[in-house]
Amino acid sequence: MRFGDRGYPNCVNASVAKQLIESHLVSGEMKPGEEIAIRVDQTLTQDATGTLVMQELEALDLDRAKTEVSVQYVDHNLLQADEKNAEDHAFLRSACRRYGLWFSKAGNGVSHPTHMKHFGKPGKTLIGSDSHTCAGGSLGMLAIGVGGLEVASGIAGEPLYLRMPEIWGMRLEGELPPWVSAKDVILEMLRRHGVKGGLQRIIEYHGPGLAHLTAMDRHVIANMGAELGATTSVFPADDAVRVFLREQDREDDFTELVAEDADYDISDEIDLASLEPLIAKPSSPGNVVPVREVAGTPVSQVVIGSSANPGLRDFAMAAAMVSGRQSSDAVSFDVNPSSREIFADLTKMGATLDLISAGARLHQTGCMGCIGMGQAPASGTNSLRTFPRNFPGRSGTKEDSVWLCSPETAASAALTGEITDPRDLADKLELEYPSLDLPERATINLDMLVAPLEPDEAQREELVKGPNISALPDFPPLPDRIEAPVLLKLGDDISTDEISPAGARALPFRSNIPKLSDFTFTQVRENYPQQAAEIKDTTGHIVVAGDNYGQGSSREHAAITPRYLGLHAVVAKSFARIHWQNLANFGVLALEFDEPGDYDRIDEGDTLVLDRLRDLLPGDRHAQIHNATKDETYELHHRLSERQVEAVLAGGRIPLLARRPDADQEKVDV
Amino acid sequence: MRFGDRGYPNCVNASVAKQLIESHLVSGEMKPGEEIAIRVDQTLTQDATGTLVMQELEALDLDRAKTEVSVQYVDHNLLQADEKNAEDHAFLRSACRRYGLWFSKAGNGVSHPTHMKHFGKPGKTLIGSDSHTCAGGSLGMLAIGVGGLEVASGIAGEPLYLRMPEIWGMRLEGELPPWVSAKDVILEMLRRHGVKGGLQRIIEYHGPGLAHLTAMDRHVIANMGAELGATTSVFPADDAVRVFLREQDREDDFTELVAEDADYDISDEIDLASLEPLIAKPSSPGNVVPVREVAGTPVSQVVIGSSANPGLRDFAMAAAMVSGRQSSDAVSFDVNPSSREIFADLTKMGATLDLISAGARLHQTGCMGCIGMGQAPASGTNSLRTFPRNFPGRSGTKEDSVWLCSPETAASAALTGEITDPRDLADKLELEYPSLDLPERATINLDMLVAPLEPDEAQREELVKGPNISALPDFPPLPDRIEAPVLLKLGDDISTDEISPAGARALPFRSNIPKLSDFTFTQVRENYPQQAAEIKDTTGHIVVAGDNYGQGSSREHAAITPRYLGLHAVVAKSFARIHWQNLANFGVLALEFDEPGDYDRIDEGDTLVLDRLRDLLPGDRHAQIHNATKDETYELHHRLSERQVEAVLAGGRIPLLARRPDADQEKVDV
Repeated sequence: MRFGDRGYPNCVNASVAKQLIESHLVSGEMKPGEEIAIRVDQTLTQDATGTLVMQELEALDLDRAKTEVSVQYVDHNLLQADEKNAEDHAFLRSACRRYGLWFSKAGNGVSHPTHMKHFGKPGKTLIGSDSHTCAGGSLGMLAIGVGGLEVASGIAGEPLYLRMPEIWGMRLEGELPPWVSAKDVILEMLRRHGVKGGLQRIIEYHGPGLAHLTAMDRHVIANMGAELGATTSVFPADDAVRVFLREQDREDDFTELVAEDADYDISDEIDLASLEPLIAKPSSPGNVVPVREVAGTPVSQVVIGSSANPGLRDFAMAAAMVSGRQSSDAVSFDVNPSSREIFADLTKMGATLDLISAGARLHQTGCMGCIGMGQAPASGTNSLRTFPRNFPGRSGTKEDSVWLCSPETAASAALTGEITDPRDLADKLELEYPSLDLPERATINLDMLVAPLEPDEAQREELVKGPNISALPDFPPLPDRIEAPVLLKLGDDISTDEISPAGARALPFRSNIPKLSDFTFTQVRENYPQQAAEIKDTTGHIVVAGDNYGQGSSREHAAITPRYLGLHAVVAKSFARIHWQNLANFGVLALEFDEPGDYDRIDEGDTLVLDRLRDLLPGDRHAQIHNATKDETYELHHRLSERQVEAVLAGGRIPLLARRPDADQEKVDV
Repeated sequence: MRFGDRGYPNCVNASVAKQLIESHLVSGEMKPGEEIAIRVDQTLTQDATGTLVMQELEALDLDRAKTEVSVQYVDHNLLQADEKNAEDHAFLRSACRRYGLWFSKAGNGVSHPTHMKHFGKPGKTLIGSDSHTCAGGSLGMLAIGVGGLEVASGIAGEPLYLRMPEIWGMRLEGELPPWVSAKDVILEMLRRHGVKGGLQRIIEYHGPGLAHLTAMDRHVIANMGAELGATTSVFPADDAVRVFLREQDREDDFTELVAEDADYDISDEIDLASLEPLIAKPSSPGNVVPVREVAGTPVSQVVIGSSANPGLRDFAMAAAMVSGRQSSDAVSFDVNPSSREIFADLTKMGATLDLISAGARLHQTGCMGCIGMGQAPASGTNSLRTFPRNFPGRSGTKEDSVWLCSPETAASAALTGEITDPRDLADKLELEYPSLDLPERATINLDMLVAPLEPDEAQREELVKGPNISALPDFPPLPDRIEAPVLLKLGDDISTDEISPAGARALPFRSNIPKLSDFTFTQVRENYPQQAAEIKDTTGHIVVAGDNYGQGSSREHAAITPRYLGLHAVVAKSFARIHWQNLANFGVLALEFDEPGDYDRIDEGDTLVLDRLRDLLPGDRHAQIHNATKDETYELHHRLSERQVEAVLAGGRIPLLARRPDADQEKVDV
């Protein structure tokens, strides 16, 4: 592996989070709310978002990854109900060979624990096109989930731009009692602070309670920081991290990174000894209550796995609990090993046999039901999962009833067929808290983790594209004059789901923008794709919208597919943050009314004119649009930074990055 | 378990097949081609066909299964992409509890090997709503795959009607050489005789070569007798069967059943020592060639599993071959354990660890890719599978390229990334033929095989029906006078796929006849369901067709769904055999033109009149239809037996069976 190395002073006043940011700061001021840019050491992508990232690398005309480590995992789309999944896997493999990325084959494991085991390194930055990338914070990394183009840019050597978050110090005291584990710590955080409690914050865990949490326990806590809405979570790189890296035969990769008596923007604490088994009720990770409060509720399914409880310990605990017993006749007891190395260790320990014998359905290693790939429960029946999310319908069942809990609580329900506080098992089943005998060295098997090719070999590689994989379309520069009709006039709070729907019909085409475009706005106007396509090569079109346009999921497709169909500009009362950024990234002009009342003056079908855009935009944040149909002019403004104006005029960040004269030469100093 | 027992004379002249038939003969003469009826001892159903069987039991108003053993397996629809699979499983479990059936939970295993291990018994008859039910012939059973209503009737105590097949004696000489296994024997049969070679025949294996084939080897051979088109295959119950039952701790269930120097209708032989590794090329099980002829072909996927190679030995062989080695970087190496007991034995042996370490993706136990539930390969790439079928598109990939072979040949390709004769591994990889050390006693775990409830408890059970599970509709008697329009006039060779399509859109509704009806004939006439529904409760309708109406798959839905939409009669030049039987089973009158030229005189929309049907049909095979629109009369005939006439007049076999006064009292003498 080609890790670089970088030492840190054993700083005692700056928080770990600030040390990580400062050591990677490329531009900006570390003041909460200010835009900063940080250097990207590592990236990870998974297959559901990675195909688009690889198409973006192709569009950028990248020669070779400029990061220290970039890894493409295949862990999401493993069911292969038709040829598209396998073709995506083959495409991703070829892209890794071409661009100098690591490739983690289908069946190797879930990205987050696998990355932690093989690539995680204290003091490094990691960005990933998966919202649970923040799990990397368990090793003293700054690990952030972002959009695909940010990852592609990072691979191409660009820094990550973000608003400096507040640092939220969370002091841990005491030690967890028996039957209570790391999952209950993050569930306690969600019980206290809800799903928006972490917005614009980095949660930094510190204090004496850390001494009793292994690195993998910390992974459980950092992973579900995403559910608090946090930018990321950070743990120090202390002795527990050293022990973890030693187990992985990577002690050389250890660098101590701690902060004693650091100043935090906000301070809070948890006494671990006071916690009890907790569970998130349907259908939000924030609906947390003590397990005892809902004990006795019947259960139809129990699932153990996912990046939220990925460690050997989590599976071994469940196996020890069911060893020599039988899961309830009425329960489907599903187990998804998180990596094949953990599966191998479980097998060596005898835990695999315990699970099989107790009636578990052992599934292939991967995310599986956590991202709705199979394991959908029957309507209206209760499914207990060690997963991070239980949003309505995410399981694949429209009328689902999914609960989130620890492996201890999940295994208890598998045995009894109802929600059960594991502390009550001694009475119910004469089951005492098991002591686990985990191996001191983890199984290490790198054979399904395919290393990058040497540069000269890589340059000869061709991308393998099955019938469903297209190249990204070209993104021509924004014209200097736009004269185009208003094809849609929309109301407030239009979500990215309404712009580019998810679901089983559309998702298989996520590697195929032209095909995926056929679904654009169809939830709002069935024939929008046809209407837009007809005038795509002549006038193009404009969309007018109300407040909060583009709320919801971060999917880039909601910017790319209308752009592909000829969308030049969206004129709205206001925009949701991430979609607004995605529009800029993909060269669509986002303009806001100075006078919201002007929204009412425009009708669908009106022709709007924007002129001398090249002069206009760089100058100030003001713009004008002329309604040729009504012969009226409206005052507008934009909020784009200089960097973003340049991107929009160029047709988006992809052509901008691709045409830099030094694109191939630039090296990041590591 | 409540097996009965029945001894057989150690008969030396009648074939095993004839002994089995004779001992179960209820009516008819054992002359090839004549209709016979045989008593049904055991049934098996799987979840993809079983939901309809259970709905049929409900429609029959059955109180309790009248067979010795009836088992419902859940092995097909395990992916659970939405709630329908889990709801089917819950429905099946409740139906087993209500009707006194065994229930094999999801994750327990594939029906055929699991049935063989726990219920298979020499001398018994078994029918199953799965075409590979014939695998049961490996234990000296008469095991036949049939339609769902035949199974439902069997569970209700009715005999099975079939045409007496010819008995095809297949003498086996010699012993298989290293690297050649049972799969190569059945591939040799397919190489010689093709996919129609077994039509209207029972293949009976005998001779000295049997001494070297275990019962599970014979399962492999009997299973794929389905691909020869045979009614079934039969092996004697000899010492190998005794050994198998002893391994399963069921030696008491052994009854010797052999035939020495029996007379066969046709005789043939295979010298096992002369066989070499064989492979069926895409896309028919009959395209068999020696592996060496196609060696070097690149491979993208290897899958080991399914009822065609379900034994511990098959997986252990693959594991031994890959032990300490790594599967090719370019290959997805998938393994589907066929039952959790075999998975447990593989784990105890160390084979599970060998497979995981070599890069295998271990999937949940079940049929998986064999019935197109996942594991679809990339378009145009070669997938080697130990499965029984490789019809085009069955893998889930439209442009697929699937090959069928032994575990030895499959594992060779997993290692080398190309089709490889395992005999060449010594040179290529220094890999010698492994000797396997299999346990003398199999793991036995009955905990996921749920026994029938006691009758009084069963009667209190309610069927659990999720939103997607309907009751079977009512089937009213055929009216005495039909005056109805011709809603469709069709050409020749209309297949059941055109009548009731398969595929991902329609199949999830197989438990829901009203919903599934919305797909009826839509490949031919998109608005047929609406048109038919409009006149369903007034006139109903008639379909006119050319030759070979209803060819293809045996699915009952192609009779039930048009019937549900008001189809009274099909008037055709001729009918395909199975669909013709299904029409009679579900109360639709199948009439053929005396003068095929009359077909041309009828137009769509004509009103046809059939009068005094109750007098007409029982009398002779002659009928008349009056075209009221054209004022013409055509001469017709039917080919229904007296039994079938009674069924059609009653509205099908379900109401007929349901209304028998003694339906609940009748007991089969066992």
